[in-house]
Amino acid sequence: MTPSQALPAVLDQIDADLDRSLERLFEFMRIQSISTDPAYQAQCRAAAEFVAGDLGSLGFDAAVRPTAGHPVVVGKGGNGSAGPHVLFYGHYDVQPVDPLDLWETPPFSPRIATLADGRKIIVGRGACDDKGQVMTFIEACRAFKAVTGRLPLPITMMIEGEEECGSNHLFDFVKDNADEFRLDFALVCDTSMWDAKTPAITTSLRGLVYEEVKLTCADRDLHSGLFGGAAQNPLRVLARILAALHDEQARVTIPGFYDGVHELPPDVKADLVGLDLTAEEFLGGVGLEVPAGERDRMLIEQIATRPTAEINGIIGGYTGQGAKTVIPGRAMAKVSFRLVGAQDPQKIRDGFRAFVRTRLPVDCKVEFDNFGSAPAIDLPFDNPALVKTRAALSAEWGKKAVMVGEGGSIPIVGDFKRVLGMDTIMVGFALDDDRVHSPNEKYDLTSFHKGTRSWARILAALAE
Amino acid sequence: MTPSQALPAVLDQIDADLDRSLERLFEFMRIQSISTDPAYQAQCRAAAEFVAGDLGSLGFDAAVRPTAGHPVVVGKGGNGSAGPHVLFYGHYDVQPVDPLDLWETPPFSPRIATLADGRKIIVGRGACDDKGQVMTFIEACRAFKAVTGRLPLPITMMIEGEEECGSNHLFDFVKDNADEFRLDFALVCDTSMWDAKTPAITTSLRGLVYEEVKLTCADRDLHSGLFGGAAQNPLRVLARILAALHDEQARVTIPGFYDGVHELPPDVKADLVGLDLTAEEFLGGVGLEVPAGERDRMLIEQIATRPTAEINGIIGGYTGQGAKTVIPGRAMAKVSFRLVGAQDPQKIRDGFRAFVRTRLPVDCKVEFDNFGSAPAIDLPFDNPALVKTRAALSAEWGKKAVMVGEGGSIPIVGDFKRVLGMDTIMVGFALDDDRVHSPNEKYDLTSFHKGTRSWARILAALAE
Repeated sequence: MTPSQALPAVLDQIDADLDRSLERLFEFMRIQSISTDPAYQAQCRAAAEFVAGDLGSLGFDAAVRPTAGHPVVVGKGGNGSAGPHVLFYGHYDVQPVDPLDLWETPPFSPRIATLADGRKIIVGRGACDDKGQVMTFIEACRAFKAVTGRLPLPITMMIEGEEECGSNHLFDFVKDNADEFRLDFALVCDTSMWDAKTPAITTSLRGLVYEEVKLTCADRDLHSGLFGGAAQNPLRVLARILAALHDEQARVTIPGFYDGVHELPPDVKADLVGLDLTAEEFLGGVGLEVPAGERDRMLIEQIATRPTAEINGIIGGYTGQGAKTVIPGRAMAKVSFRLVGAQDPQKIRDGFRAFVRTRLPVDCKVEFDNFGSAPAIDLPFDNPALVKTRAALSAEWGKKAVMVGEGGSIPIVGDFKRVLGMDTIMVGFALDDDRVHSPNEKYDLTSFHKGTRSWARILAALAE
Repeated sequence: MTPSQALPAVLDQIDADLDRSLERLFEFMRIQSISTDPAYQAQCRAAAEFVAGDLGSLGFDAAVRPTAGHPVVVGKGGNGSAGPHVLFYGHYDVQPVDPLDLWETPPFSPRIATLADGRKIIVGRGACDDKGQVMTFIEACRAFKAVTGRLPLPITMMIEGEEECGSNHLFDFVKDNADEFRLDFALVCDTSMWDAKTPAITTSLRGLVYEEVKLTCADRDLHSGLFGGAAQNPLRVLARILAALHDEQARVTIPGFYDGVHELPPDVKADLVGLDLTAEEFLGGVGLEVPAGERDRMLIEQIATRPTAEINGIIGGYTGQGAKTVIPGRAMAKVSFRLVGAQDPQKIRDGFRAFVRTRLPVDCKVEFDNFGSAPAIDLPFDNPALVKTRAALSAEWGKKAVMVGEGGSIPIVGDFKRVLGMDTIMVGFALDDDRVHSPNEKYDLTSFHKGTRSWARILAALAE
């Protein structure tokens, strides 16, 4: 019996087992695995052991593997199965819970509640991020095991314990054990649906180039009465340079900046148009009204699939109370770029530095500092695993799954690509109102249940 | 005998009395009248009494008049003389002397020294600023008294004791006693020569408008991964606005900004051209090379007779170590304008605010704070007293006296104009290497001697 043939029974099994799968999730959620606080070190280890134990019960060869920080759970299963060998990544650690007094019930006492609109939700720290999401995948594996006696395809699990504090030790762990993890592709369950009815696959993550620029004009601060009019002012130089970074259409003006930025295929773009993300929805909550990006791009492109240039900070001259008639000698700005497609971080950095240098008065000096660099992650839309995943997700939710870009980066996904040469398909069932990282974190029961069913369908499709 | 008829004998008297005039100056300089330090309060009073006593010996009706701070010496003399009634302003207080270890000899032990180039100098705190300069005027009065038995014209002396700490109590003193001081015009001896051979009259002081601008876009700081591309960034808005303040010719672009800015008369401009102030001379000492003001203006115009717009400070976003991918909600800048001629501070302020407002995105809010306002001081070049003063100065130095503008303001001169409706002629004999406010302050013996002779000539000319 192939996984696809088994799928109807597997889905029934998931439905029938829902209450017990919730019990397992609750047991996992009761473990206070706050990774950033050393006081919870033992709890983090307990969470790792919980996961390893559960994986072991499904036939995975599972181990709690040490790092210089919290351990990584690695489980290997499905060796006898056909199909591609996939790496599933998730994390067992959670965010701190303060401010504790804003929780309606204790964060590590998970419960089911019902919202005013009738939605049932799972409440507690980690309900969504990432314990609930990880368990959707594990429960799908469990259902296959129950129905067919085996996993539908070869799977290596990597469940880490430091995602909420920077994944600092995971990078070396992956590099040091590259041969174990260089598989066909990775699956990650740590992202969101488009909305409660529309499943989504995250196919791109923007990269980053971060620069600090320090300008020096005069070798000291000058009095604007004596020198004003003749002395070059580094704040004025900085303002001119930074203002020139965008044209009237809000396009970035650095020569070659858009090299490697691909246009979306018409069908993908049509799907994004169909989502009809409005400025009011996206910006209204933070007090803004008008999208500030490229004039000829939809808001959803501006935030996800288009590159940006941002001024993250400026300081120079007198910034205290009242007046001081100073012409400062120095000024500093932090500028960063979000990259997409095949934009080359080094070329962007070089281009920015040249852009600044060509605009400097001859008696103005500049120093640059490199504070970070990462290329964008971009999954080809015709990746066969992506096509299968999309069809499976769409079947479960009765609505075409959209392919979206995320504006920020997920560093480990970058490492999967750079270090292991492996693409990642990101599927998650979080919703915008899940209060991830905040008090009263929740996960819709539907996200958990249909998320599990989604993974069953995806695994069956990928096994073909 | 008119003052002009007496002048040759008066000048001879000054020459003959030079040693004794130096003794008087040294006695004045030994008084440690540091106004900013309360420990020297008695010494400040002693300096005031020294001046009052000396004025009394010349026939002035002199008094040490109280203020809420250090007293003001007021002396009234020359009542029986013809000619305009002039107000002479100077100050008896001096700057602190630290760092004391940089003084070659004790600051309050004045001495004569000889420089390598043969110039004789008076060394000590207050040698120039302003005890030496004040005494040039008093010694000229003394010589007239000695030769003619009277002052050459009606003179009211106002020698204050808080110039080095802001003249805070003088403004009220002038306002409260406006009828006493509302005279024909004022003379001030607290400025510089153009160079050691070229006398100068300061005929203009730039005014000031100082603004703080606070921009708010989003109502909180945003993450540039999530919002970058769509969220308006107040630093970007600020950079665009501030960059737009100047055009490619470095002219200020605020509509109406140059209203009230007068062109210099051709002869005055020709004199400035003749001074040939170079960028190397003026900017080389602070590490700059190229004048940054209006392209079609000489450096000396840029710093003295042309208005400016300067960014005095900017702060916003993340300015600490390293990287933070924030799109800040707020940003602030301090911007000031140096005004000349008849520029109206209120119109400049209103014009700037309108300039900012018209460039704001609809969802960006702005707040302004007014941190100061003062019109420029501008003595008409055809003022008869100025014409006479210039001729007298030129005769003494054998070189045409230049009329120059100072880039900054001298607040009390503004009050003489605004409160008393009175013009001020500023003549002084300081040189650029006098180390005013610094250790080893000096005053050239030539400045003192020929300064005294200059005042004798000026007083004789004004009396006509």
